[in-house]
Amino acid sequence: MQLLEERIRRDGIVREGNVLKVDSFLNHQIDVTLLNEMGRELLRLFGDDGVTKILTIEASGIGIACIAAQYFNVPVVFAKKAASKNISGDVYTSRVHSFTKDKYYDVMVSKDFLHAGDRVLIIDDFLAKGAALIGLCDIINQAGATVVGAGIAIEKAFQDGGKKVRDMGIRIESLARVASMSPGSGVVFAE
Amino acid sequence: MQLLEERIRRDGIVREGNVLKVDSFLNHQIDVTLLNEMGRELLRLFGDDGVTKILTIEASGIGIACIAAQYFNVPVVFAKKAASKNISGDVYTSRVHSFTKDKYYDVMVSKDFLHAGDRVLIIDDFLAKGAALIGLCDIINQAGATVVGAGIAIEKAFQDGGKKVRDMGIRIESLARVASMSPGSGVVFAE
Repeated sequence: MQLLEERIRRDGIVREGNVLKVDSFLNHQIDVTLLNEMGRELLRLFGDDGVTKILTIEASGIGIACIAAQYFNVPVVFAKKAASKNISGDVYTSRVHSFTKDKYYDVMVSKDFLHAGDRVLIIDDFLAKGAALIGLCDIINQAGATVVGAGIAIEKAFQDGGKKVRDMGIRIESLARVASMSPGSGVVFAE
Repeated sequence: MQLLEERIRRDGIVREGNVLKVDSFLNHQIDVTLLNEMGRELLRLFGDDGVTKILTIEASGIGIACIAAQYFNVPVVFAKKAASKNISGDVYTSRVHSFTKDKYYDVMVSKDFLHAGDRVLIIDDFLAKGAALIGLCDIINQAGATVVGAGIAIEKAFQDGGKKVRDMGIRIESLARVASMSPGSGVVFAE
């Protein structure tokens, strides 16, 4: 998606350790106009797939998912990352390793909000090693629902998550695929 | 806001310990159609106040804030709750006590995204004891920006947060104000 690639080129900042900061428009400050364009593109890609629910994970995925959900006219469910008093005991869980924060956490979705028969589109901001995405697929499978696919804002295509998840038979559509990046030379996108 | 009150009456669940679960439409599963109505109402309330930015806090506030931001045509900034590798050192911080999770955490906003001259509307899902809201006001003040006010989905008016923050001179508009609630008799709204 050209608009997103241009924005990453202009406002993304590459840091050592394969960190791509898109904080100024995607995951700290959020440009909702850009998100609307992304939502339209996701509808173009997945609009014929009978999506009944969008699943994302807190926190950065929520904005992208909510704006996109307006185009699909379906509810958003966001997976939560830690136990809190407000989540009931009746949940699907999956254990995920966060490479960014270098720790394990449990991803949880209440059994009330995913059902057999649901056709679920996963939406998230980044795909790198695929840990969160695999956790979300696991939860959808536990519910007996169908993974329609994953709509990702930015895929770090030089890491193995995309291949791993596609090899599981999951359709992934990434709106921007980064082939390589470095602090000196910036971002190169995959064709 | 009648639509939200009706939804809380129909789908909200009151638990012991002043817990109001609105997980099925507001903060685990999200009804984006309802959020759009809330966004329109917030525009009616704050549309003449020259809002340049909407500030919220992860995670549950993000969806409400992003949908509302479409009506104001301004960016959303969401405060983050814990240190991560992806946030730069140059941040405003404020310490907040979470009564739900019974712990203290730091709320952070990058200095890149709040400036003197910004007129900031805070949007959040709940107002109870006001701790998060006071933290967000503190951060806006640190930036030398102006707090236009706070648009809250659900205020627990029987707790002291609303009075405390209004006494600070902050305008709060709550779309639903709960006067009292109990597991037996449900929710009573303030006039």
